[in-house]
Amino acid sequence: MIFQKEIILKPKPRGFHLITQEIISQFSEMTNISRGIAHILIKHSSASLTINENADPSVRNDMETYFNKIVPENATYFEHTLEGLDDMTSHIKSSLLGSSITIPITNGKFNLGVWQGIYLCEHRNHGGSRKVVVTLIGE
Amino acid sequence: MIFQKEIILKPKPRGFHLITQEIISQFSEMTNISRGIAHILIKHSSASLTINENADPSVRNDMETYFNKIVPENATYFEHTLEGLDDMTSHIKSSLLGSSITIPITNGKFNLGVWQGIYLCEHRNHGGSRKVVVTLIGE
Amino acid sequence: MIFQKEIILKPKPRGFHLITQEIISQFSEMTNISRGIAHILIKHSSASLTINENADPSVRNDMETYFNKIVPENATYFEHTLEGLDDMTSHIKSSLLGSSITIPITNGKFNLGVWQGIYLCEHRNHGGSRKVVVTLIGE
Repeated sequence: MIFQKEIILKPKPRGFHLITQEIISQFSEMTNISRGIAHILIKHSSASLTINENADPSVRNDMETYFNKIVPENATYFEHTLEGLDDMTSHIKSSLLGSSITIPITNGKFNLGVWQGIYLCEHRNHGGSRKVVVTLIGE
Repeated sequence: MIFQKEIILKPKPRGFHLITQEIISQFSEMTNISRGIAHILIKHSSASLTINENADPSVRNDMETYFNKIVPENATYFEHTLEGLDDMTSHIKSSLLGSSITIPITNGKFNLGVWQGIYLCEHRNHGGSRKVVVTLIGE
Repeated sequence: MIFQKEIILKPKPRGFHLITQEIISQFSEMTNISRGIAHILIKHSSASLTINENADPSVRNDMETYFNKIVPENATYFEHTLEGLDDMTSHIKSSLLGSSITIPITNGKFNLGVWQGIYLCEHRNHGGSRKVVVTLIGE
């Protein structure tokens, strides 16, 4: 059984955001899958998806702080600067964190650890709505 | 053909560990798959999985050294510090390296390069046992 | 429907290279898949695959510049140095960026964003030909 759908995530401010419920609420089809996987791709190269801690908002704040330190907007060595200081740094963060995640499905639900959730990592100052393609494969 | 199982990895000290054999030895079901994929997710946000060099232990040592440099525990900008200095840094390393890997299966075996193996990256000082969910999809 | 094939990519100089067309041109089988996923693994631990911006070459240049800054070849803390200064740094870049990518397939084509493409990231000075295994799963 293969199910695929494209959905649009609500615009988010720059930073790391827990979107597990926003995804689940649009995929009731998942309840029909006993075991399988869900693949989620974000169709943009300046935002990313990752799995991380789902409880304490300070984790998401610290992620934003850290990635701004490690990919500095004031670096003088970037060529690709036409669209602003948050452009090239967003491309880099996107490849460091990744454009897609894959999650096991068990008994109709994401089979994540108790403390894990899905993050949308919005790297642009004004990223707007973001599209994701979700593919469910299972039986 | 879809096969899924959750297994518990033996506790490992902080660092990078080759676990290819520990995984394979628990998945005899793989021998029934001519072609397909194996997806492996670690159900924790302070450890990670990656694919890298499978021969020289100095690679795993250098990985640990490098990630400690690039995600420093003495950084003063982290808020999420209640569980110790190795807490927030572990979450960051987890997203830099990734919570899951996907490997092709060919003729009943992982189809990796000759020099590739699976690493468990244990970022906590005392991480304990780690759970992984393995999903095999193939024919 | 599962289709799997190993292909050899043309040797590339060190740096980030757009290979979307080089992959597509060797997978006419994809046109038979209405919906599914493509998994691509590079069988080497000193090169990697990522998805990023597909238009402006300065993005690929800036990626190379950035990863050389963040994983410096003149670091004195590496043990694994027998094969040259670009050896251990290539292993690290490989795990930061990742050995494999998964892309949705829709109506016979990769379902990527308009501005997304597949990068081969060649981290060695003389990497030579690189092998990838592509697995298509769909219906």
